[in-house]
Amino acid sequence: MQTKSRQVKEDHRLVGLEAIFEPLVRPLELMNDFLNSQIDLFEPELRELVRYCLEHKGKRIRPMLVFYSSWKGGEAISEDLIKIAGIVELSHLATLIHDDILDEATIRHNMPTVFNKYGSKIAVLLGDALFSHVLVLASEFGTSDVCLTIAQSIRRVCAGEIKQTFHSLKDTYSFEDYYRIIDLKTAELFYVSCLLGARQGGFSEDYVNAVASFGRDIGIVYQIYDDLVDILGDEQQVGKTLGTDFASGKHTLPTLRLMDKLSPLDRLEFLQGVKDGKITLEDLKLMLTEYGVFEEIFAMLNERIENAGLSIAKYKTFSSFPYLMRIQDLVSTQVRRLEGFLFV
Amino acid sequence: MQTKSRQVKEDHRLVGLEAIFEPLVRPLELMNDFLNSQIDLFEPELRELVRYCLEHKGKRIRPMLVFYSSWKGGEAISEDLIKIAGIVELSHLATLIHDDILDEATIRHNMPTVFNKYGSKIAVLLGDALFSHVLVLASEFGTSDVCLTIAQSIRRVCAGEIKQTFHSLKDTYSFEDYYRIIDLKTAELFYVSCLLGARQGGFSEDYVNAVASFGRDIGIVYQIYDDLVDILGDEQQVGKTLGTDFASGKHTLPTLRLMDKLSPLDRLEFLQGVKDGKITLEDLKLMLTEYGVFEEIFAMLNERIENAGLSIAKYKTFSSFPYLMRIQDLVSTQVRRLEGFLFV
Repeated sequence: MQTKSRQVKEDHRLVGLEAIFEPLVRPLELMNDFLNSQIDLFEPELRELVRYCLEHKGKRIRPMLVFYSSWKGGEAISEDLIKIAGIVELSHLATLIHDDILDEATIRHNMPTVFNKYGSKIAVLLGDALFSHVLVLASEFGTSDVCLTIAQSIRRVCAGEIKQTFHSLKDTYSFEDYYRIIDLKTAELFYVSCLLGARQGGFSEDYVNAVASFGRDIGIVYQIYDDLVDILGDEQQVGKTLGTDFASGKHTLPTLRLMDKLSPLDRLEFLQGVKDGKITLEDLKLMLTEYGVFEEIFAMLNERIENAGLSIAKYKTFSSFPYLMRIQDLVSTQVRRLEGFLFV
Repeated sequence: MQTKSRQVKEDHRLVGLEAIFEPLVRPLELMNDFLNSQIDLFEPELRELVRYCLEHKGKRIRPMLVFYSSWKGGEAISEDLIKIAGIVELSHLATLIHDDILDEATIRHNMPTVFNKYGSKIAVLLGDALFSHVLVLASEFGTSDVCLTIAQSIRRVCAGEIKQTFHSLKDTYSFEDYYRIIDLKTAELFYVSCLLGARQGGFSEDYVNAVASFGRDIGIVYQIYDDLVDILGDEQQVGKTLGTDFASGKHTLPTLRLMDKLSPLDRLEFLQGVKDGKITLEDLKLMLTEYGVFEEIFAMLNERIENAGLSIAKYKTFSSFPYLMRIQDLVSTQVRRLEGFLFV
C-alpha cells in the first residue's frame, strides 16, 4: 500500500503561532465542539472514520482567519461564525485526505493518514463524504451564498492541484504557472476564510474584499515560505526530513527561478544532475545563493507581506485590525527567521 | 497503472429503454446542451477533462426520472428542471469517476475511463471538481433546498460505497447489510432524482414523497437486477464478460442468500471452493436454482416492482402517471426476460 514513506510536512514551522492564538482559545474550542457534534449527523458507516480524521489537529490557520476577519471582541462570536470556521476547516481536512492519497503520505499531524490506516478506497470516499457534509452545513444558512462560495473555492483548489499534477510530469514550467498553482491550491482557502468570515460579520463589501485580498496574500506567502523551508529549514526545528520536494524532482519557486537564470546548457546540466542525484541539497543552496535567487524570493515575500497590510490599511479603527496585523507580523517574523538561516 | 483490465458493466442491459425515451429526446438534448455549456465555467485547467467526461454517454436514467416525475407535457420543461436533471447526471458522473479508480476499471461507455487515460491523481481531483460544480449549480436556486438535498445524497452514496468496501474484506455479510449498501449507493440517486424533479415541478409534498419512494424502489430493483445479470445474463446480449463479481470473490444478493441456506459446513466448503476457483459459474447457477435462490430473488423483485406502482397509484390522473408506469413496465419486462434465462 505505502510505496513511499515520506513524512508529510509537520506543524512546527510557524513557531510562535500560539502567541496570536490566545484570544482564539475559546472560539477554537467552540469550533472543535461544533465539529465533534457533527459526527453523529453522518451515516453510521462514516462515524468512526470522521472521528478519526477530526483527531488530526492542524494549525487551525483558516479558522483563525475566519475569526479575526470579523473580530468584534471575543464575546461577539456567533454560532454562525463558528459554523463558517468549521466549514473551512472541514474543507481543508477533506483536501488533505485526498492530497495524502496523491502523495502516498503515511504520516500527518503525527498520526497515520487515512490513506495509510484505511487504504486509498476509503480515503477517496471519506474525502467525498466530508466535502458533501461541508455543503450540507453551507446549505443551512438562509441564502445559498455560503454554499456557492465554498463550492467554487473547492473547485478552484482542485484546479490548482490538477495543474500541479500535469506540470509535475514536465521538467520545468514558468513562474506564472507556479503562481497560478499556489494561488488556487493554497491561497484560495485563505482568501475564502477571510471573505466568509467578514461577510458573516455583516461588514461592508468594501471591507470584505479588502480582508479577502489580505487573506490571499498571506496564503501566497505561506506557500512560498513552505517551499523555501523544504530547502532552507533546520531539520531539528522543522521536525521533518527536508529536501523532499527537491529529492522527488518536484520544482518549486527556488528551482524554477534558478532555471530561468541559467544558460540553456547549464539548465540541461542542472536538470540532469538533479535526476542523477549528483546535485545535493547543499549544492542547490549554494547555487540559489550565488544566482541571487534567495534574495529575489525574500524580496518578493516581503513585498507581498507589505501588500497584505496595505489592503487593510484604511480599516485601522476596526476591532479586527490589530489582530490581522498580528498575523501579518507573525508571518513577517517567520520569513525573517528563515532568511537568517542564509547566514548560518 | 492498470493492474486489472476489467470491463465496466456496459449499457446494453436495459434493452428497449429507447422506447420510453422518445418524449425525452428533446429534454435530454437540452440537458446535454446545458452540461456542455458548463465546460467554460470551469477553470481553464479543468475544461479539457470535463469535456472528456461529458463525452461518456450513459443511459441517462436519472435525468429520465427527473423529467418524468414532474411531467406536465414535453413543452412544459423549464430551464430549472433541465438544470436539476444536469445536476443529478453530473453527480452520477462524478461518482463513476471515483468508482473507476476504486475498481481499477479501464473502460466505461466504450471509452477509456478517466482513471485509465489520466491516472488516479487526476481522477480523484476531477471527481472532486465535478462534485463542487454540482453544488455551485445547486446554489443557483433561490433557496438552499436543492443544495442541501443533493449534498446529503452524495454523502449517502459515499456511505454506501464505504460500507461495501469494508464488507468486501469479509467473507460474507447479511441481507440487511447488502440491502443497506444498494439503498445508499444506487437507490439514493434514483430517489433524489424523483424527489428534486417533482419538487421543482411545484407538486404537493405528498406526491413528491410518493414519487421519490417509487424512485427508490426502481433503484433497488435496478441494482439487484444488475447483480443477477452478472450471473444469469447472456454474454452476447449484455455485451460484457459475466461472472466478474463471482470471479473476484465479491458477494452479491444471490451468493449471500445461498450461504444463508447452506449448513455451516457446506458454507465453508462453498467459500473455499470459490476461493480456489473450483466452483464454476455453471456450478453456481445450478446451486442457486436447486436451493430456490433465484425463485426467491425474482419474487422479491416482482414484489418491489409492484410496490413501486402502489406508491403512485393514487396519482392516476397526473400527466406523469403513464410515463412512470412505462418505466415500471420496462423494468418488469426486463426482469421477466432475465427470469426466462432460467429455463434456457
